[in-house]
Amino acid sequence: MEAVIELVSTGDEVLTGLITDTNAGWLSQRLLEQGWQVRRRFTVGDDKADLVELFVQRSHQADLVIVNGGLGPTSDDISAEAMAEAAGVPLELNQHWLEVMQQKYSSRNRVMPQSNSKQAMLPQGAELVDNPVGTACGFAIKLNRATFFFTPGVPSELKKMMDDEMLPRLRRQLGQNGHSQVRRFFLFGLSESGLSDRLDHRQWPAGITLGYRANSPTIELKLIIETEDAANIAAAEAQLLAEVGTHLVARDEMNFTASLGPLLLNKDLVIFEDASGGRLTDTISTITSEFEGHYLAGLPDSAEDLAHWLTRSTRPLTLAIGAEGPQGIPIALLSAQGCQVQTLQMHFRDPLNRRRLLAFAAFDMLRRHLVGETVMVDYDILPCSERFTLPT
Amino acid sequence: MEAVIELVSTGDEVLTGLITDTNAGWLSQRLLEQGWQVRRRFTVGDDKADLVELFVQRSHQADLVIVNGGLGPTSDDISAEAMAEAAGVPLELNQHWLEVMQQKYSSRNRVMPQSNSKQAMLPQGAELVDNPVGTACGFAIKLNRATFFFTPGVPSELKKMMDDEMLPRLRRQLGQNGHSQVRRFFLFGLSESGLSDRLDHRQWPAGITLGYRANSPTIELKLIIETEDAANIAAAEAQLLAEVGTHLVARDEMNFTASLGPLLLNKDLVIFEDASGGRLTDTISTITSEFEGHYLAGLPDSAEDLAHWLTRSTRPLTLAIGAEGPQGIPIALLSAQGCQVQTLQMHFRDPLNRRRLLAFAAFDMLRRHLVGETVMVDYDILPCSERFTLPT
Repeated sequence: MEAVIELVSTGDEVLTGLITDTNAGWLSQRLLEQGWQVRRRFTVGDDKADLVELFVQRSHQADLVIVNGGLGPTSDDISAEAMAEAAGVPLELNQHWLEVMQQKYSSRNRVMPQSNSKQAMLPQGAELVDNPVGTACGFAIKLNRATFFFTPGVPSELKKMMDDEMLPRLRRQLGQNGHSQVRRFFLFGLSESGLSDRLDHRQWPAGITLGYRANSPTIELKLIIETEDAANIAAAEAQLLAEVGTHLVARDEMNFTASLGPLLLNKDLVIFEDASGGRLTDTISTITSEFEGHYLAGLPDSAEDLAHWLTRSTRPLTLAIGAEGPQGIPIALLSAQGCQVQTLQMHFRDPLNRRRLLAFAAFDMLRRHLVGETVMVDYDILPCSERFTLPT
Repeated sequence: MEAVIELVSTGDEVLTGLITDTNAGWLSQRLLEQGWQVRRRFTVGDDKADLVELFVQRSHQADLVIVNGGLGPTSDDISAEAMAEAAGVPLELNQHWLEVMQQKYSSRNRVMPQSNSKQAMLPQGAELVDNPVGTACGFAIKLNRATFFFTPGVPSELKKMMDDEMLPRLRRQLGQNGHSQVRRFFLFGLSESGLSDRLDHRQWPAGITLGYRANSPTIELKLIIETEDAANIAAAEAQLLAEVGTHLVARDEMNFTASLGPLLLNKDLVIFEDASGGRLTDTISTITSEFEGHYLAGLPDSAEDLAHWLTRSTRPLTLAIGAEGPQGIPIALLSAQGCQVQTLQMHFRDPLNRRRLLAFAAFDMLRRHLVGETVMVDYDILPCSERFTLPT
């Protein structure tokens, strides 16, 4: 039976959305990398009654509860107090941690403020967990079915404590899992529902599940692998790759610097764009600085006119996005293979999303050209109204 | 007795931290602006048994539960199914929504994929909530003590549905708070701690609280107003405006089309940028298409050289961001007032954040010029190493 792991994020700022809870995501990812999947997450404010109720409830349902935040010196930091109340034990002064804190202050020639002594008060029976970079110590305590680990809310302190102190303890408690992994695939041009039609009816080998995530302009597909059977893993990946074909634009991460940057060296690429604002230039500049980009209003709005306009370019590699015309928006790539041009129809209304998709469609033509794939293909999300190649 | 409001965020991607849950924070803030505070938040994966258990449990504890995500067409979108099971009712086809979706597709000359029909299956007895910008309709359903509202995970769809459809329903259900309102102020160039030093010690009139939100490249400040005392509201706003001075770049929303678009007509603006990639052009193109933008690698990396390079421009209004040099990154505006140039130091390392800040700093020079304010001012977050004006 797999251990039930839960997270509790505390604090009014997180609950009200004044600050975004990046700790919870970091913790979940860190645990997943070890092969442990978080089952549920709870977010509560600085309210003692709510915390006590939650701790008691989770102590019967979970094996492991990681609590983040509420260990500071101020009056709204109440995690230790709430845990003591939930467990029905008093708070006790941890003399060792009090001395550690006093030393931290005196090594900076400062006197510890009175309010900090609160941070050495732990629930009776709790095990202290060192915080090498702050005054908020962590602690572990067992209640009913669950072991609770309390961690500080300051991200740098949380990360250090988690990696140096908590993970070794968790490995002892949960056992080494070892074989859980995620493989990511980024796709462009397929709709989420189109992808679902292609993939949902397929069988995946035991221990392998498929996940999606729409993240305009791409869709991220992932294989979550909880098996060590290499043949099954290879078969699942082959099946996925066969279904998505050349719509696959990246694996593992959406970063093209390593793969395309070198291919753009000395290519003297020039970009002209109209309907995409400056988004295409902005996209390419994340990969290389070896190009020129020009935003001009009033570029041609038909494939034919844009292709003719481009054939006057004296540069060996030119990428262009025209203006929106009655047939859609023409996009063209001029290279030694001629001027390849297509008109794409855009049904999205949000201006940012329109520019993102247009820029990525043009980027995709360039990417395909650089890696030697067919440059113009059908995209579900951007229907093509015409497509042709002019010889240069 | 105040209504107990809870949020449920669904999805493996959110639970595992693959994506950061910005929807929950947005929802909490939106509710807070109406005077309603979220009490607890739950995050669960795409696991039907877990969702059913949670829905049943919350139906006894909360008055209002807003569920986000899991309304898409794919097999891991199971919110409606789980709610039906929790309520002990079947899913039923909503013929109206099926037709709406088919129309959405046919208006784009596409056939609706089979998988989308799932999005018209709602728990029996649920009230449909329109989604004007997507195929995932929302719905409302009562179970035990709680009313559940289901909302789509795509942020733009969530926001539109919340503002247009859900908030009016919530006002009817929770009662109009009536006088709660929020005024927003967007600032550029101040750090969060600098702002805190300026504002935190100030007294605000009764019923008025101040909120911050860092949202690179700007900071959003807001007055949350729960009083009807017009004199107090005016005094609070005057105090805030006096403290932030000309760092205020926008009120209510960060959209400059209405305020600056007309001022850029026939101005023949041209932009040259290097260190900012194409981000400045991209920013200006959200306001107007009446300009030209050029990304060129190898622009001058000192204020003096950039200013001299610019004075050769034959265009009446030219904005430029140079390359990074030993003193920082030079930014210049050439206008009838001469060439105003400053070198800004950039301490941020994240490339996207660097480009955003640089682009916004240049945009801010242009904005100040257009509205007749001092063009070059001190920014906490981008210290200036030199600043001068060359006559044209």
